[in-house]
Amino acid sequence: MNEEMLKNQAKEEIPYKIYLTENEMPKAWYNVRADMKTKPAPLLNPATLKPMTFDELRHVFCDELVRQELDDTTAFFPIPEEVFNFYKMYRPSPLVRAYFLEKALGTPAKIYYKFEGNNTSGSHKLNSAIAQAYYAKKQGLKGVTTETGAGQWGTALSMACAFFGLDCHVFMVKCSYEQKPFRREVMRTYGASVTPSPSETTEAGRRILAEFPGTSGSLGCAISEAVEAAVGAEGYRYVLGSVLSQVLLHQSIIGLETKAALEKYNVKADVIIGCAGGGSNLGGLISPFMGEKLRGEADYRFIAVEPASCPSLTRGRYAYDFCDTGKVCPLSKMYTLGSSFIPSANHAGGLRYHGMSSILSELYHEGLMEAVSVEQTEVFAAAREFARTEGILPAPESSHAIRAAMDEALRCKASGKAETIVFGLTGTGYFDMTAYQKFNDGKMSDFIPTDADLAEGFAKLPQVD
Amino acid sequence: MNEEMLKNQAKEEIPYKIYLTENEMPKAWYNVRADMKTKPAPLLNPATLKPMTFDELRHVFCDELVRQELDDTTAFFPIPEEVFNFYKMYRPSPLVRAYFLEKALGTPAKIYYKFEGNNTSGSHKLNSAIAQAYYAKKQGLKGVTTETGAGQWGTALSMACAFFGLDCHVFMVKCSYEQKPFRREVMRTYGASVTPSPSETTEAGRRILAEFPGTSGSLGCAISEAVEAAVGAEGYRYVLGSVLSQVLLHQSIIGLETKAALEKYNVKADVIIGCAGGGSNLGGLISPFMGEKLRGEADYRFIAVEPASCPSLTRGRYAYDFCDTGKVCPLSKMYTLGSSFIPSANHAGGLRYHGMSSILSELYHEGLMEAVSVEQTEVFAAAREFARTEGILPAPESSHAIRAAMDEALRCKASGKAETIVFGLTGTGYFDMTAYQKFNDGKMSDFIPTDADLAEGFAKLPQVD
Repeated sequence: MNEEMLKNQAKEEIPYKIYLTENEMPKAWYNVRADMKTKPAPLLNPATLKPMTFDELRHVFCDELVRQELDDTTAFFPIPEEVFNFYKMYRPSPLVRAYFLEKALGTPAKIYYKFEGNNTSGSHKLNSAIAQAYYAKKQGLKGVTTETGAGQWGTALSMACAFFGLDCHVFMVKCSYEQKPFRREVMRTYGASVTPSPSETTEAGRRILAEFPGTSGSLGCAISEAVEAAVGAEGYRYVLGSVLSQVLLHQSIIGLETKAALEKYNVKADVIIGCAGGGSNLGGLISPFMGEKLRGEADYRFIAVEPASCPSLTRGRYAYDFCDTGKVCPLSKMYTLGSSFIPSANHAGGLRYHGMSSILSELYHEGLMEAVSVEQTEVFAAAREFARTEGILPAPESSHAIRAAMDEALRCKASGKAETIVFGLTGTGYFDMTAYQKFNDGKMSDFIPTDADLAEGFAKLPQVD
Repeated sequence: MNEEMLKNQAKEEIPYKIYLTENEMPKAWYNVRADMKTKPAPLLNPATLKPMTFDELRHVFCDELVRQELDDTTAFFPIPEEVFNFYKMYRPSPLVRAYFLEKALGTPAKIYYKFEGNNTSGSHKLNSAIAQAYYAKKQGLKGVTTETGAGQWGTALSMACAFFGLDCHVFMVKCSYEQKPFRREVMRTYGASVTPSPSETTEAGRRILAEFPGTSGSLGCAISEAVEAAVGAEGYRYVLGSVLSQVLLHQSIIGLETKAALEKYNVKADVIIGCAGGGSNLGGLISPFMGEKLRGEADYRFIAVEPASCPSLTRGRYAYDFCDTGKVCPLSKMYTLGSSFIPSANHAGGLRYHGMSSILSELYHEGLMEAVSVEQTEVFAAAREFARTEGILPAPESSHAIRAAMDEALRCKASGKAETIVFGLTGTGYFDMTAYQKFNDGKMSDFIPTDADLAEGFAKLPQVD
């Protein structure tokens, strides 16, 4: 057989969707920090500027989650049986070969995507939500509180809490609460109580309402309310859906499954791409591959894709900053635009966080990962083309990765290289049709912050180093 | 090993989700009419009361689809390669073992469901849409027209037409167009043009608007407009998402996959349950099992589940009736409530059709299938319990089958029998949160038509027999 025939044979053998069997599902999460020579900088107590201790953190988070957060040496954490059984309801997720997209682009590249949207939360968020709810239940807690913006994390946590019989209190950014009544209603169907934030139910909320009577809320404010509600109630803890190292640990299930699926068919990825807001899906997807790279076993290109309107990696500073706008959370060293940064109102969808996971920040700082930023009109153009060729209507967030994957595939077309591109398709866009409508009507525009805009945020960074 | 141990071993061997491989996917659709001793009564021309001919039907439908519609003797129709490749993007769909639901109900029954909601149309409708679009493309047509109520069929057809590069014109019932802007927007994203019906673009629409200026539309009116738009335009045909025998043929993929998945694990179903509006998903699910029953190879109970507010099988007449309210379509012999019947305004979701597939009607008439009706408050209660235990937020339509499956499982609990129950979970409820909200707020009520209500519809049945 000549090379062409071999190529064709290989192509025929790979199905459209690679599913692992239950027996092939990963039994432990992978903690990439264990293989990092330079560990991510520790969380600092903003009052003392000393690393946060277990005892300081356990008032806010469940004990086991604090242990996971602080552990940067243990490589594998076994997935508890109850969590594993829940995973079996919606995992393994398919690794899809984008045959139709390849054909539409006319590229020699082989494109794969790990599709995490086939569950009711509509995204990968459920992977960590069920773990966090499990540890809360195991600790004998009554319930958890959290914030949600677009609503994916709140939905995932509601599902997880319904499963373990935990109270779930979600502070939902007010404008989102009003614009996305369906998201709110899914959470209520799962038994969660949903409060528009800022609210009169917390001191933080009342203070903000007094100062800005007509405010439509922000994620930073909702975090402050959720933390206050948890700390002030017996038997409650606060949980978070991204940014933290514990969340990247749980999300490593994405990368572990992807790696197992590729190995099953003897495929070696060249480029691995994910969208990046706080970093949970990207970190989860690339972790096991990055582990190989860190150990010198294999090489890959990793690309983080962020919105041009919220460019924390590509234009941010690598510095200690507050994790929240309300400055009630610890300081984290990360690429940041400043905790007061809020993306332009014309930015659709998520990926609005001002900072980035400390793990990804360190990896990027060391040059182990690349980052690109893309504008939203080109993101939605990619989303629509993907929907029409691959049959899945993607979330705006996920479409950032689609855009970058298509650009890489077109680069391959120009160079004639048949590279293997893998990207994370984190979720579906069923609750984002207002943004699609704007795009379909030709009314979507781009907004890129100026250097002067960003300088404002940098000027307010806390003085730590 | 004793019996208990054997049972446990068997249980462990069956995964939460059974996926067929691509190679195990059915290669041909199954036409249950081939095995029926008494064939479904033919469609009649309302003017002549004679069976509709190929030449009469081909002005409205694609040639190949007319052939499939009229063929009641060929058992298998090969699935065209292009359709099969499209199927591979979202099929095979999983056959899920409802371990958690079984546990929550405390039933010895084994419950399986075939989940058809994991695609962007959110339901099984795509199985027929892609076939119908393919035949239209193959015939060299420019495009197709159709109507949609809740929007699942319109979405599925938009996706199929985008894939084959066909024009797609959807007449969407006006109240639905206004209440479900997201559904409309998904269709537009796939390039379909969506017109609220009744509209000024057709004679039928203008006539209805003149007569009822403030009308919010009906499926019957939208059908009339879609048929007129197709017949009046060069290179266009009309397509329909349920009721017709060709649609049940395409939907047999559901049952064929279910049967293959059960056989893979040596499982024999006792009861097979599906919701029934026009009958497309139920007919598709049960067809291959019914074939076995008709050929005397195996026995099963089949249960059609319909809304108490639209009880065509349980309370309708088996008679010739118009397929549409506007009386532009042929007459079909079926269980019907009369073509003027419209379910109470408080009925949420689909399953609103006044009649039933002629195939299912004949099978029911012969006592080969049972039917039950359920009220919507108990349907939504089942939906919520299912969402919380199995992690999938079901469509209101699908939840009729869930309700009946849970009732059967509770019957098994009372009798101690460990029967195997299989039901069709046709779709997800992400676009139906307005109905869920009503239920969550305790504002949902039931409405069952009186005998006098139904007598009105029966009085208007055409005199044929």
